[in-house]
Amino acid sequence: MRLTRRYRFSASHRLHAGELSDERNSEVYGKCNNPHGHGHNYILELSVCGPVDEGTGRVVRLGELDSLVEEQLLRELDHADLNQQMEAVPTTENLAVEIRRRLHRRWQGTLPRLEKIRLHETKRNIIELIGSE
Amino acid sequence: MRLTRRYRFSASHRLHAGELSDERNSEVYGKCNNPHGHGHNYILELSVCGPVDEGTGRVVRLGELDSLVEEQLLRELDHADLNQQMEAVPTTENLAVEIRRRLHRRWQGTLPRLEKIRLHETKRNIIELIGSE
Amino acid sequence: MRLTRRYRFSASHRLHAGELSDERNSEVYGKCNNPHGHGHNYILELSVCGPVDEGTGRVVRLGELDSLVEEQLLRELDHADLNQQMEAVPTTENLAVEIRRRLHRRWQGTLPRLEKIRLHETKRNIIELIGSE
Amino acid sequence: MRLTRRYRFSASHRLHAGELSDERNSEVYGKCNNPHGHGHNYILELSVCGPVDEGTGRVVRLGELDSLVEEQLLRELDHADLNQQMEAVPTTENLAVEIRRRLHRRWQGTLPRLEKIRLHETKRNIIELIGSE
Amino acid sequence: MRLTRRYRFSASHRLHAGELSDERNSEVYGKCNNPHGHGHNYILELSVCGPVDEGTGRVVRLGELDSLVEEQLLRELDHADLNQQMEAVPTTENLAVEIRRRLHRRWQGTLPRLEKIRLHETKRNIIELIGSE
Amino acid sequence: MRLTRRYRFSASHRLHAGELSDERNSEVYGKCNNPHGHGHNYILELSVCGPVDEGTGRVVRLGELDSLVEEQLLRELDHADLNQQMEAVPTTENLAVEIRRRLHRRWQGTLPRLEKIRLHETKRNIIELIGSE
Repeated sequence: MRLTRRYRFSASHRLHAGELSDERNSEVYGKCNNPHGHGHNYILELSVCGPVDEGTGRVVRLGELDSLVEEQLLRELDHADLNQQMEAVPTTENLAVEIRRRLHRRWQGTLPRLEKIRLHETKRNIIELIGSE
Repeated sequence: MRLTRRYRFSASHRLHAGELSDERNSEVYGKCNNPHGHGHNYILELSVCGPVDEGTGRVVRLGELDSLVEEQLLRELDHADLNQQMEAVPTTENLAVEIRRRLHRRWQGTLPRLEKIRLHETKRNIIELIGSE
Repeated sequence: MRLTRRYRFSASHRLHAGELSDERNSEVYGKCNNPHGHGHNYILELSVCGPVDEGTGRVVRLGELDSLVEEQLLRELDHADLNQQMEAVPTTENLAVEIRRRLHRRWQGTLPRLEKIRLHETKRNIIELIGSE
Repeated sequence: MRLTRRYRFSASHRLHAGELSDERNSEVYGKCNNPHGHGHNYILELSVCGPVDEGTGRVVRLGELDSLVEEQLLRELDHADLNQQMEAVPTTENLAVEIRRRLHRRWQGTLPRLEKIRLHETKRNIIELIGSE
Repeated sequence: MRLTRRYRFSASHRLHAGELSDERNSEVYGKCNNPHGHGHNYILELSVCGPVDEGTGRVVRLGELDSLVEEQLLRELDHADLNQQMEAVPTTENLAVEIRRRLHRRWQGTLPRLEKIRLHETKRNIIELIGSE
Repeated sequence: MRLTRRYRFSASHRLHAGELSDERNSEVYGKCNNPHGHGHNYILELSVCGPVDEGTGRVVRLGELDSLVEEQLLRELDHADLNQQMEAVPTTENLAVEIRRRLHRRWQGTLPRLEKIRLHETKRNIIELIGSE
């Protein structure tokens, strides 16, 4: 059974790859390459997968998952500038990988397997990262 | 091809497992263990999977599916207390299993295979039950 | 200028007026009169109205408003049975009046005037209570 | 990694299969068989799947995808009568297949694989067409 | 106190004013003037205003309002072509006026005053008609 | 009759008032005072009010309104850093005032009166600025 839990955070970013020319940056990232950055209200959905505990009727202890997300993600990414928080260009794709990396630093055996990360940058752009590695 | 159809119902529940101590219940279920119960507007998404009928251009007869859901689910679960309607603790996980069980009591061969049940308890908590058994 | 802030809570209720006959109760409240109660995910929108503080550029200190709502409302109404929390029949209309009463117990002069309470019981049913009394 | 991008268009249709009798049409399509047609605000979600480009941090160049969708789909389907635009009965199922056919006319090798088409006719009816053929 | 209740219907229309030239029609209505029509999923919000009945705790009997809307509006407008249903050009503005006219044909004294009609044509276009005449 | 039209833009900001101490800034703005800024997907709703043109059945020419918004607002505010675009602290309140100022630079007599600006910073924070001055 799969449980999906939804979190929100707001952050800014500017898409600009150091190894590309200014022209190429503008071509690849369009308005997202604007010099002073801009921002989004991100929606993050974490899906975990595992058996239902017979005693409790639950797949996961929500309190444990929430604490992990608060400590490993929201404390640093919410109301932050993503360019300060990660080395790679903060595209939604790279941000999803960064989120998975941060979660796995402290993902304990008492939590079921993290199966999918779904990250909405806007209503129109959604990235899914499937599998735990 | 997969068709997903969405239904809504409102119900109350209290999460409390008889075989657990009061302390453990409070620890596992948090506010959902509050003594007098509380409730939710549930959203239920049923996904069926099958070929498109060449004559009609449809995967499923929606009227047939709606009747089944009305009779087997909504009549008893909408505006009800889930603790009265099922034996297991009415977590979203157990409720999804209960919904599948009730649907399969009368799932006829004229309907395509039920592939997924997706149950939203709130905007933040979503359970998916995949497969027909 | 008007600022609206949105909160959520989940609660159960049963609509049944003691002074009405069972038949009349069933006629007036329909499925909401079902004996064991049911529940909803409520959305509460509070609108306050006042001038923008020139120094801070804000109409209200959100932290102050959030604390008041947490203490006077959410702590008791979230994950609760509304029939236990109020004397009147817990229709959305009466609940809006109850919410206003509870907020005004501690509404301090540092907060701007509470202009409107908007309470969504479901996507289809919305109650607005305008004015501060 | 999978990227999903969302588009909207509004169109009308009437569901009526030439090879079926009037009675059978009414039975199969219900209100959708009403003689003068009706319409919907469709939401279209395209999911593409591929590796993240190391230089740009992106799965797909959004500008390229948007141009293709604009030219092959929206220009002809938005604010149109679907019965004029396709030969098959314009059910959501057949429309999804038609959308895939139109996209593949010009799907270039610089775009990652089209993995899924998800088409929402209303909030309650959603069709998914998986795979690129 | 104001109660707002939400309904949905799907319909098609073509915006074309007989007294305007083809060029002017195209200029005024843009894509909505496309020859074969198109359609929308409309959302209708009716707001009624009145005192709360002390016995029942309600502003309006929802069953009575729903019956009126079903009979006077949805039966004819849902899954219909609006150009067949009204004489004026079926803009959202004219449709709101038409809806008010139809409701008032049978608006009974047992219902509170109809204060506002809010009609969403798409997520981006919303019309409000305030007052009962 | 009132027409509301909805626009979206994404921008970043940092809330920090030059005349306040660092401590006071942190107290007033909380996480919004974080040093490197953050961002949001803003939703802007413009409500205009006027009579329906009898010939066209419309309150406003949408094309004219859209051009004005594109030129006066979106071109400079979308995918921008609001601290670069306005002198006041970019709270939602001040941003709404700035939006009204920019719109009125070119608001032509062919457009109906601008009655309300509604600006959603997040799902929880909404500002309304009523009246045209």
